[in-house]
Amino acid sequence: MNIPKTSFPRIIIIGGGFAGVALAKKLSKQDLQVVLLDKNNYHTFQPLLYQVSTGGLEPDSIAYPIRKILKNFPNFHFRLADVEEIDIEKNKVITNIGMLKFDYLVVASGSTTNYFGNAAIEKYSMAMKTIPQSLNLRSLILENFEDALLTSDLNERNALMNFVIVGGGPTGVELAGALAEIKKGILPKDYPDLDTRLAQIHVVQSGNCILKGMSANASQKAEDFLEKLGVNVWKNVRVTNYDGRTVTTNSDLTFETATLVWAAGVKGANIKGLDAEKFITKGHRLLVNEFSQIKGFDHIFAIGDVACMVDGEHPNGFPMMAQPAIQQGDQLGDNILRLIEEKPMKPFVYKDKGSMATIGRNKAVVDLKRFKFQGVFAWYVWMFVHLFFLIGFRNRMVVFINWVYNYVRFDREARLIIRPFKKKLK
Amino acid sequence: MNIPKTSFPRIIIIGGGFAGVALAKKLSKQDLQVVLLDKNNYHTFQPLLYQVSTGGLEPDSIAYPIRKILKNFPNFHFRLADVEEIDIEKNKVITNIGMLKFDYLVVASGSTTNYFGNAAIEKYSMAMKTIPQSLNLRSLILENFEDALLTSDLNERNALMNFVIVGGGPTGVELAGALAEIKKGILPKDYPDLDTRLAQIHVVQSGNCILKGMSANASQKAEDFLEKLGVNVWKNVRVTNYDGRTVTTNSDLTFETATLVWAAGVKGANIKGLDAEKFITKGHRLLVNEFSQIKGFDHIFAIGDVACMVDGEHPNGFPMMAQPAIQQGDQLGDNILRLIEEKPMKPFVYKDKGSMATIGRNKAVVDLKRFKFQGVFAWYVWMFVHLFFLIGFRNRMVVFINWVYNYVRFDREARLIIRPFKKKLK
Repeated sequence: MNIPKTSFPRIIIIGGGFAGVALAKKLSKQDLQVVLLDKNNYHTFQPLLYQVSTGGLEPDSIAYPIRKILKNFPNFHFRLADVEEIDIEKNKVITNIGMLKFDYLVVASGSTTNYFGNAAIEKYSMAMKTIPQSLNLRSLILENFEDALLTSDLNERNALMNFVIVGGGPTGVELAGALAEIKKGILPKDYPDLDTRLAQIHVVQSGNCILKGMSANASQKAEDFLEKLGVNVWKNVRVTNYDGRTVTTNSDLTFETATLVWAAGVKGANIKGLDAEKFITKGHRLLVNEFSQIKGFDHIFAIGDVACMVDGEHPNGFPMMAQPAIQQGDQLGDNILRLIEEKPMKPFVYKDKGSMATIGRNKAVVDLKRFKFQGVFAWYVWMFVHLFFLIGFRNRMVVFINWVYNYVRFDREARLIIRPFKKKLK
Repeated sequence: MNIPKTSFPRIIIIGGGFAGVALAKKLSKQDLQVVLLDKNNYHTFQPLLYQVSTGGLEPDSIAYPIRKILKNFPNFHFRLADVEEIDIEKNKVITNIGMLKFDYLVVASGSTTNYFGNAAIEKYSMAMKTIPQSLNLRSLILENFEDALLTSDLNERNALMNFVIVGGGPTGVELAGALAEIKKGILPKDYPDLDTRLAQIHVVQSGNCILKGMSANASQKAEDFLEKLGVNVWKNVRVTNYDGRTVTTNSDLTFETATLVWAAGVKGANIKGLDAEKFITKGHRLLVNEFSQIKGFDHIFAIGDVACMVDGEHPNGFPMMAQPAIQQGDQLGDNILRLIEEKPMKPFVYKDKGSMATIGRNKAVVDLKRFKFQGVFAWYVWMFVHLFFLIGFRNRMVVFINWVYNYVRFDREARLIIRPFKKKLK
């Protein structure tokens, strides 16, 4: 790979998500050569992907060019690359654009959808982890309604208008709420020829509550909100298969749908060379110590979703969310500088800033350390926090304008099938 | 096709561009069943496509859902369909989603890129007539610079950094200006490892001036503006071939480039059934009379780019631009109502509101009937007019915010490779 040679030690960061970007920002002002590798040239603000899928936001306003985040740092180099393998013996990263040696390596490759080995579900369901996936889902939802207009087979029409979301985490809940609002506010106007009241939205959750990482209050209130919006919430039901039309579960319950959204699990995005059993723990994550070091190495680290760091309160690792990733990236930046200066590193302490989810207009649930609240005020807090963490002034402005518009007009104008996603109903 | 039966006469409009939408708006309040067919579910504001290609705007903010333009009109029906053939004997339209009979038919299918029969150019060049094409060009431009970083072959690197735009009309001129600004303001920061001063932008024009539809003053000034921005303008040169790397011309001049943008011509988007020689005139357009009627028919019309209507000043038809399309759609709406009421129709009179093009920040040329001016004021006029004609309040706000941001920050943040477009350099 074509990277200028310097006398500085070289640190390679794999992944430009929350963790990788936080780390790169910390290190780029130092006497270090920082090489960031990502398969996209942009950072994705994943918490708002569901709004792209549901036509509320443009994809461009929740993405940000990685080169721009880190411009003006002469020792920073970005390369658009797929990392294929890590050679832990020879301290090399092998990519589709060539090989590169490192002095320090940080794996911040994030997570991917976990289908738990079910190939049929992987083949026929929709995921929502990346911008292209979210745009595909947007296209499919709209194409389904266009197709529903064309068929006179009632079962087929219903299947086209039904949505089954597997997983009652924030992604599933937020998507279900947005779909319910579209059903109520937009479909009757856009499709006067269809009886869109027949459209059904189901959330299927294998555990006994939704938003299980949050307080019991938040979980119950979110369920109430969803039910008020007309969403069917199924608890203690596990989806077992999907053939492109029929969803089967571990109970008698089945659903006919052209759209199954799989939001039921994620796993660490491991990379060959670090995928040996000794490195991996639950959820395919890389086990790291409190300094983010991978077992057996001083100079190879993992942070963010792909890393599993445990503490007393989190025996299975920190939640796979933006906050731990940003904090780990931030702290690892300081620690690597300490390591180079041969000072002792500081152990990571997770500051839980709380969690939140939005269900619809004026409807959100927020759990902070001291305060837990739901409803209108929670909704404002949710919006403020998401705007604040979004990267870039322009993105914030554009998202804000869209939100104000959508709120005032009960509308979502980005219901565009820019690239069709044809997935034939069986 | 599944369209409700009514006692009203049925008018089918093919195409949701400027002409089709203007017509549908006029007719949808009347005792008529209006069926609009388009292969996209959105209307595209084509004059701003070049800003999508160059990362200045989101695609979603220059597109607008057709269903939303015409909601609340109970006799209006939109169908997402590819029209395959028109049966002029039996008054039927045949599409990929079925057949539909009409009482009146309006062809507003617009125009497509004209490669003048050159298959190699069609295969290897980029066009910019649709949103997906514009996004492909955006991806390619950015991918080229990423690839330029990876090669140590100087010729290849230069080819990746060069851009050849064929055609000196508004599209070519505006794209060249935007690329020149990116070269100056963004590339040096984004790609500090590349000598981006070596990037070249060429506009190749077969005639002896650029913007040939405009005044001599505007044309000259636009050329001065482009040269000030570092764009090479080649006049009286015709591109003869392109093999994916080398552009040959009718002179000794050749260019090495990975990106040839073909903006050298458009032609009417004809449809089978109306493609017989007797219907067609120059530029593959459908010859119509002053009532937009196709020769030999009272009830089949063509408007917009696909229609060739001549008057004393325009012996080759009106320019293929938004203004004639909107005016024709508008007037045909009135005329069809007159026809139904058995009143005489009014002949179309084109009101030339002038034309304009922007070259870069503070640089535009405007030709109005009485006033012709260039420079900063022209640039403001250009922006105001484009914002005014953009459909939708949200779109206007978002575009406005982006323009203010881009102007103040000398930036374009939508430089994202959302869907890669890999076109291997030969």
